[in-house]
Amino acid sequence: MQRTLSRDLPARAGATVRLEGWVHRRRALAKVSFLIVRDRTGLAQVVLPAGRELPGEETVVEVTGRAVANPVAPGGVEVVEPAIRVLGEAEPPPVELFRPALDAALPTLLDHAAVTLRHPSRRNVFAAAAAAMGAFRGTLSAAGFTEIATPKIVASATESGANVFAIDYFGRPAYLAQSPQFYKQTMVGVFERVFEVGPVFRAEPHDTSRHLATYTSLDAELGFITDHRDVMAVLADVVRAMTTAVSPFGFPGVLVPATLPVVHFADALRMVGADPDEPDLAPEHERALGEWARTEHGSDFVFVEGYPMAKRPFYTHPQPSDPRWSNSFDLLFRGVELVTGGQRRHRYADYLAALAERGESPAPYETYLAAFRHGMPPHGGFAIGLERFLARLSGATNVRETALFPRDLHRLTP
Amino acid sequence: MQRTLSRDLPARAGATVRLEGWVHRRRALAKVSFLIVRDRTGLAQVVLPAGRELPGEETVVEVTGRAVANPVAPGGVEVVEPAIRVLGEAEPPPVELFRPALDAALPTLLDHAAVTLRHPSRRNVFAAAAAAMGAFRGTLSAAGFTEIATPKIVASATESGANVFAIDYFGRPAYLAQSPQFYKQTMVGVFERVFEVGPVFRAEPHDTSRHLATYTSLDAELGFITDHRDVMAVLADVVRAMTTAVSPFGFPGVLVPATLPVVHFADALRMVGADPDEPDLAPEHERALGEWARTEHGSDFVFVEGYPMAKRPFYTHPQPSDPRWSNSFDLLFRGVELVTGGQRRHRYADYLAALAERGESPAPYETYLAAFRHGMPPHGGFAIGLERFLARLSGATNVRETALFPRDLHRLTP
Repeated sequence: MQRTLSRDLPARAGATVRLEGWVHRRRALAKVSFLIVRDRTGLAQVVLPAGRELPGEETVVEVTGRAVANPVAPGGVEVVEPAIRVLGEAEPPPVELFRPALDAALPTLLDHAAVTLRHPSRRNVFAAAAAAMGAFRGTLSAAGFTEIATPKIVASATESGANVFAIDYFGRPAYLAQSPQFYKQTMVGVFERVFEVGPVFRAEPHDTSRHLATYTSLDAELGFITDHRDVMAVLADVVRAMTTAVSPFGFPGVLVPATLPVVHFADALRMVGADPDEPDLAPEHERALGEWARTEHGSDFVFVEGYPMAKRPFYTHPQPSDPRWSNSFDLLFRGVELVTGGQRRHRYADYLAALAERGESPAPYETYLAAFRHGMPPHGGFAIGLERFLARLSGATNVRETALFPRDLHRLTP
Repeated sequence: MQRTLSRDLPARAGATVRLEGWVHRRRALAKVSFLIVRDRTGLAQVVLPAGRELPGEETVVEVTGRAVANPVAPGGVEVVEPAIRVLGEAEPPPVELFRPALDAALPTLLDHAAVTLRHPSRRNVFAAAAAAMGAFRGTLSAAGFTEIATPKIVASATESGANVFAIDYFGRPAYLAQSPQFYKQTMVGVFERVFEVGPVFRAEPHDTSRHLATYTSLDAELGFITDHRDVMAVLADVVRAMTTAVSPFGFPGVLVPATLPVVHFADALRMVGADPDEPDLAPEHERALGEWARTEHGSDFVFVEGYPMAKRPFYTHPQPSDPRWSNSFDLLFRGVELVTGGQRRHRYADYLAALAERGESPAPYETYLAAFRHGMPPHGGFAIGLERFLARLSGATNVRETALFPRDLHRLTP
């Protein structure tokens, strides 16, 4: 007999059905017992005579019985006269998964992830993650972007120098890639428009609620742009699609107006009352800008463009009208940086000059610079941190809640 | 003026158009000159008066001119009276990209990947890669699978022991994940059906044409199966979809009959005339089976099931009728192993017994075994090597040709 998913049970009233799933909850009352069976589509109620021995919570069962209408059952249909077969035994779970809210501190949640992720509230975050990744790819594929897979092991720690993990590569030193930045730019020379969804690695020594040692980066890069505003337009489409894709998961609604507000960095400093010589926005400044965007523009997103060149990587394109500023941007989501992006330099001579200005030799960048030496269009791109998106979306106070099996300064398991 | 892509040029005859792309080739004849401009959709011909200075190959240009019909031009339309603006200068490329076939040895191809990947024949392989990844995800998403992102840094080198890369994790030892095996099984407990597309890492000391130090693994795992045949059925759907998705890219057609042939390992040994006590198939055996599948079944694919338990990992489910054999399989594509998969054990007690039998302590597996301790359904899965798929598809003799920036025993750049 074909399996019936709990979602489809209401349509099968009157039929004999076969359910499969986990015992989400068992309840023995005086006159009757219930099993709530959980599968990937939801919950189903199974009714048994009182006194029958009930399998424990998280036991995996096959239940064959008759589906009958019962207005007070979940979905209006329950399964009666069941034959129950145990497919997988279970010891009692470390936390009670049947409670509407998981009552566990963060370390417990993470130490027992194999079990706690089964709770509907946890599962939901990662179902949203899958939908968000799908929307990212779908939007870009429809816009002529090509997916790429770039190396995660690299020869030199060039991109930012600090915070790289060293690996033993057949007896030689190598490093884990902090981002696909150099490779996605190179691939603009091949496909013009590329994206990648993959892990990035940051040997982040700060033990904060916002940092992970590895996370999922949603990267895009596109050529033949006029300036960073073309990149921002693609990004706006992407976040709109991601926001729509996660809307079925029951998180607080996200405000995405038709046009996302944009503020220049210099104006942003003024708006938040910061010193005009500040080289970056502090977290409280970002919060204030987020609040402004929400109240003034009905937007959970706000672009800040024009960050000072001094604070941006050497590949950043300066603002043509005033090279103190850059053609780069951040996108804040509910007052926290979610995306960094911008226009990149595209002329070989400009790279040589930018590196020289920073006192750096071009030698370690040789294979990266080859792309520019041999013809590259004006281009730019962005990177979205998936876990941060989920944290702001779900209201999680710690980004560790939005990685399946997070890694940080202290945590390497499970 | 909006950019016209070369693909759309035939529809714009008579109009003034703006092209953007790379100078693929320049040709100065006695009475006229030509520029062939390459963009992400193909090639376009631009006609200039003789004697005008022509930008070098790979220069990035914007060409504004009039589109006119010319039956001998590519696509039947060319651009005349052009104004040409250089967007990005280019030094002469290290290999001639305008030749129909790239005349370069493998090291040259790889050392200059930033440029050689622009050649249509190279680009095509990775456009097919993107289509294959999309088909993998699309097929599984439609079948109720959820995408996951699992850790690439792990605490112990448990899965196979050998061939792992060690990393310095904040002063502690850690390792790069050889596969998402343990995590995808764990996630069956959460989503029942999961997939992941991501990098895996093998410190492969063999310098062969088949091995890479890191490659893209297309992983899937599903619960509530009867046995490995349910897994093979999903895999057959996936390879069929991948094969269809890459069909526009002009590689030799792939034979995929309605039912893929299946041979038991013991029968396979007999068929290829090998010693019945052989524990594995040698490459020449796989080639012979591939040949048999092609001639007897009109299939480029053949399943071999039932590999000896002794040669499979401890999580492999034995064949119930004879536990010398396993409920595992390989899928050969044109005579080479492309996929490994099978049914896994799902009972905690079975894991403890399997580890004890191999003389291993369960302690390093504690967080993995937690999933089984707390209830897991019968399940199984598979992993497809993307680069191998592309190599067999394209006829590449070396798998390094099918990774954008391959990594091996000797190669860490570009």
